[in-house]
Amino acid sequence: MAGLEIRAMETVRQMDVKPGMSVDELVRAMGGCGFGASRLADAVEIYQDMVLGDYTKFFALSGAMVPAGMRNIVAQLIRRGMIDVLVTTGANLVHDIIESISPHHLGSPEAEDADLREGGLSRIYDVYLSDEQFIQFEDLMQGIIPAHGDPVSGTAFLHQLGSRIDDENSILATAESCNVPVFCPALTDSMIGLQAWLFRQTRPLRLDLLADVKEIVDICYRAEKAGIMIVGGGVPKNFSLQSMLVTPHNFQLAVQLTTDHPEAGGLSGATLSEAISWGKLSAQARYVTVYGDATINLPLLVAAVLTRMEERISEEDRSQRCD
Amino acid sequence: MAGLEIRAMETVRQMDVKPGMSVDELVRAMGGCGFGASRLADAVEIYQDMVLGDYTKFFALSGAMVPAGMRNIVAQLIRRGMIDVLVTTGANLVHDIIESISPHHLGSPEAEDADLREGGLSRIYDVYLSDEQFIQFEDLMQGIIPAHGDPVSGTAFLHQLGSRIDDENSILATAESCNVPVFCPALTDSMIGLQAWLFRQTRPLRLDLLADVKEIVDICYRAEKAGIMIVGGGVPKNFSLQSMLVTPHNFQLAVQLTTDHPEAGGLSGATLSEAISWGKLSAQARYVTVYGDATINLPLLVAAVLTRMEERISEEDRSQRCD
Amino acid sequence: MAGLEIRAMETVRQMDVKPGMSVDELVRAMGGCGFGASRLADAVEIYQDMVLGDYTKFFALSGAMVPAGMRNIVAQLIRRGMIDVLVTTGANLVHDIIESISPHHLGSPEAEDADLREGGLSRIYDVYLSDEQFIQFEDLMQGIIPAHGDPVSGTAFLHQLGSRIDDENSILATAESCNVPVFCPALTDSMIGLQAWLFRQTRPLRLDLLADVKEIVDICYRAEKAGIMIVGGGVPKNFSLQSMLVTPHNFQLAVQLTTDHPEAGGLSGATLSEAISWGKLSAQARYVTVYGDATINLPLLVAAVLTRMEERISEEDRSQRCD
Amino acid sequence: MAGLEIRAMETVRQMDVKPGMSVDELVRAMGGCGFGASRLADAVEIYQDMVLGDYTKFFALSGAMVPAGMRNIVAQLIRRGMIDVLVTTGANLVHDIIESISPHHLGSPEAEDADLREGGLSRIYDVYLSDEQFIQFEDLMQGIIPAHGDPVSGTAFLHQLGSRIDDENSILATAESCNVPVFCPALTDSMIGLQAWLFRQTRPLRLDLLADVKEIVDICYRAEKAGIMIVGGGVPKNFSLQSMLVTPHNFQLAVQLTTDHPEAGGLSGATLSEAISWGKLSAQARYVTVYGDATINLPLLVAAVLTRMEERISEEDRSQRCD
Repeated sequence: MAGLEIRAMETVRQMDVKPGMSVDELVRAMGGCGFGASRLADAVEIYQDMVLGDYTKFFALSGAMVPAGMRNIVAQLIRRGMIDVLVTTGANLVHDIIESISPHHLGSPEAEDADLREGGLSRIYDVYLSDEQFIQFEDLMQGIIPAHGDPVSGTAFLHQLGSRIDDENSILATAESCNVPVFCPALTDSMIGLQAWLFRQTRPLRLDLLADVKEIVDICYRAEKAGIMIVGGGVPKNFSLQSMLVTPHNFQLAVQLTTDHPEAGGLSGATLSEAISWGKLSAQARYVTVYGDATINLPLLVAAVLTRMEERISEEDRSQRCD
Repeated sequence: MAGLEIRAMETVRQMDVKPGMSVDELVRAMGGCGFGASRLADAVEIYQDMVLGDYTKFFALSGAMVPAGMRNIVAQLIRRGMIDVLVTTGANLVHDIIESISPHHLGSPEAEDADLREGGLSRIYDVYLSDEQFIQFEDLMQGIIPAHGDPVSGTAFLHQLGSRIDDENSILATAESCNVPVFCPALTDSMIGLQAWLFRQTRPLRLDLLADVKEIVDICYRAEKAGIMIVGGGVPKNFSLQSMLVTPHNFQLAVQLTTDHPEAGGLSGATLSEAISWGKLSAQARYVTVYGDATINLPLLVAAVLTRMEERISEEDRSQRCD
Repeated sequence: MAGLEIRAMETVRQMDVKPGMSVDELVRAMGGCGFGASRLADAVEIYQDMVLGDYTKFFALSGAMVPAGMRNIVAQLIRRGMIDVLVTTGANLVHDIIESISPHHLGSPEAEDADLREGGLSRIYDVYLSDEQFIQFEDLMQGIIPAHGDPVSGTAFLHQLGSRIDDENSILATAESCNVPVFCPALTDSMIGLQAWLFRQTRPLRLDLLADVKEIVDICYRAEKAGIMIVGGGVPKNFSLQSMLVTPHNFQLAVQLTTDHPEAGGLSGATLSEAISWGKLSAQARYVTVYGDATINLPLLVAAVLTRMEERISEEDRSQRCD
Repeated sequence: MAGLEIRAMETVRQMDVKPGMSVDELVRAMGGCGFGASRLADAVEIYQDMVLGDYTKFFALSGAMVPAGMRNIVAQLIRRGMIDVLVTTGANLVHDIIESISPHHLGSPEAEDADLREGGLSRIYDVYLSDEQFIQFEDLMQGIIPAHGDPVSGTAFLHQLGSRIDDENSILATAESCNVPVFCPALTDSMIGLQAWLFRQTRPLRLDLLADVKEIVDICYRAEKAGIMIVGGGVPKNFSLQSMLVTPHNFQLAVQLTTDHPEAGGLSGATLSEAISWGKLSAQARYVTVYGDATINLPLLVAAVLTRMEERISEEDRSQRCD
């Protein structure tokens, strides 16, 4: 920290913004800034290394990301091989299935909620669903839930649902067709859980959610190198991280997009550094948390990483052609 | 909103604070203020009506409340009959069990996490646990997890654990002895889940978490009047609210203590008003959200409500003696 | 961090909450907890040491604390000698003056703002003011603003205003009568500023706000020991801290009550630790930030500290009687 | 809200993200989403209409935006005529002047602050400044502060400073050369204030900050149509909005980028809707708040708007050529 050292430090590069610039150019320009801008640039670097390297890639997805319009992004990441393990909430899967029937509606966050109820509308901030859509969801679910006399794991159950959803943008359908396991530890805490309970009143269904623990722990055992992208926090974050805990491995790369803060002590807002004390992240891990709305920061990050992947592939193409 | 109306409005009563004042006096003084102060005062009024009325009282507990020192408060609420249904996270139950062995440690949120790992310490913000404590936890768990060849519901499983914990301040033990059901929808997303997985490698265990859906929905069906105290958000909040959804009933009273905000669209930060659009809360419900750290606001609220309950009982005693 | 050391660490003391307990008992019970509870308990310890010791006591007040009902608390702190220097926003002083005319009104944060305008009401979250009150404010101000042909400092100007306000709970009046300087660096950014501009259209007024810099720096030069209570952030926080910067001294005790967070890089959310790098706080300073709503946390903190002060005085009384 | 109406509602358009996409394409794709994504898309629409229409364009800048790398963006907006009135904090101007001498340094937000002090470094989250830079700042300031025996307004003083800064990317220099007034109501609450105090110990300087009130109110009187971009909150937000209050006009377009929330009642987090109750915004105003880090959201928004402006100009060019 002597005078000499400051001269060796990197300096802030004031950002230049231009008409027509690409997302990747914007993110690169953010790389020389402070605060959230440089964190976003770091997140892109880390996520890029994760998807281009031979990491087992976890994706922990919470928050109402599907109703808000992030469904195709997740499906695309699966399709492109950028997600090896998806851990998510029941709600995101419920809304993924609903989207395969009909789209969500855009409303106002300031509507009178009692009026919405009168009108048969349920609100998720500024996104609405009609009662009719829930009826259609129920009809579909009662038709596609698989009967099981013997215990079935949550992941197997979700793949079976996925195989019965006819929508190429469906996260569940894409995960099934790409053979990417989907973990939903709180599956019963969702309308899928309620539908399964309804289904079971007349047909056999035995969900063995403990089998999922074995399954994800096995994946963690095989994952000598692992990285994780965490959108939100909650159960998906915790389940992904805790599963690594019982293996000799840990995560070497991690990105977290969150609006939560560490000071209240909850897991959703916990720093990724805290995960090092548990041995979930390597003490040498590269990690960054980007604070803000994931419906802005996730698309930004993914657009930049996709651009870099394509550039990399083009370069490889060129170099091969040169051979 | 005419000139007349403003004259009819309540005015802000500037708060007076005195040496030696009681928590209840403080909260009453907050009642004439704006912002969070009046919300806290409202929360006390609503919670008081909930516990003194014939409501089915739900308590949704998330966040690392047990490691932070809120365990006795929850156990006391159960013991006093102020909780009829507890919905919580695996983490709070894990730390409840650990506390029955040895206490958590107080550290700094700014410790170097790699050093903590070297020292065998896992950090939850400023609370630490040693590896030794996790080993003791494992020893205990492997001894008390009940073997089950037939499927067992999560609530029955948790009551069995509770019956084997010898600690009058334990949430699980108190819930069991008071016959208060404990729901933990994401049970597998916790060290209890990991211990159950370990246990099952050599002994039979069949957890039927779908049975919990039936059980809580049955409670909701019987609950003609229902109130809920929500600490944090996450799965406990959603599971409590969604279970009411499939019944003809809804919640008439609700209090939420949270640090989260609605703008990012997640369920944890969603307004209680939003739950009206879903039919989870009555359109006539009385409800309030108090923003801030629950380790401050929960004790404040409970101390005030306990005071009022005791005053009520004293009054009833006196009036009976007069008869 | 070896095994031995954890045995030497303090353990979490689970909080017990009792009917009828005092605020001070509650805060003491929080002292053994984690997260915000222990920070609040620390804040009380630090503030107690500040007011009982021979520190120059700064109080930086931002946020709409007066409209929300915190006016009497601040006035009381001045009256009891617990504030030596008050640094605040124009808004708090405007609302202090308005309260000396008529009280603010309590409304709803969800009112339709266009309707409020129609009704002649201005909203500060859930606190309303009528246009009539602003007219009364203007009338009062045009009568009490002192004419000055020669430059007058902001603090002198504010004391003159204070001397003309007839309300023992007024912050300005109390500060004047107790000879506590009031600094308001952004005085022109308030309705006092607008009234002064109006006044000057017909009468002479020369405000010399640079003179305030000299005045506060002089206080800092004389303050060999200094402590600060920061409510909110903004200009009052910065002006207090920067003034110490040009002296050989710094703050040894500091408490900050805020809802803001460090990650966005703004001064309001900056950690107190950051102020050490600037030399504003001593490297040996004791300091703590309590996150949450100051309309809850400030009364809590003040009630506890007043209790301890009174106990201390009683003890001294007793010990004197014993002599 | 009947069944018919939901069919008429807009539906969520799930976002598609592609390699190589431009910032503007990304923002347009966000337009069909919920939560923050659609707010950002709305902000771009509103800001676009503001800069392309004949609005008087206010820009209220707070937060440490210059140290974080946003300086060139603001300078560019001034140069392109997209800012008619700049209202900002002393800190942003101080760091603008420092950048004209030497760049800020990028460090870590987790450095030990006592070590930084030893090393002569002051920290703003993850941006550092050396003591040497402050000495250079002092040298420069003492050379360029203009002596004034007669009162000088804050804006005139700042233009004089700007005229003596030789850096085309300087906000102050650009504002001066483009004749854009710069208001800094809390000028004394900054190192410019401290330098002015120092300067005045040997030379005459009379700052008349009340004159700025007259000046901005005059601008507001002339502004029949007005729009405002608010970055952060604080004094710049309040001063801009309050100045409109005393005129017959109000703002018709408003965008706010903030990390703050309404619940704590402070002005920085207040909704723009609240400003309607005061008459600062028109009841028919179009406005939106985007929650998140402005070092991410401001560049995003500006890059999209610049692209649209250029497209508009190209179209006009083409249409002219066709004539």
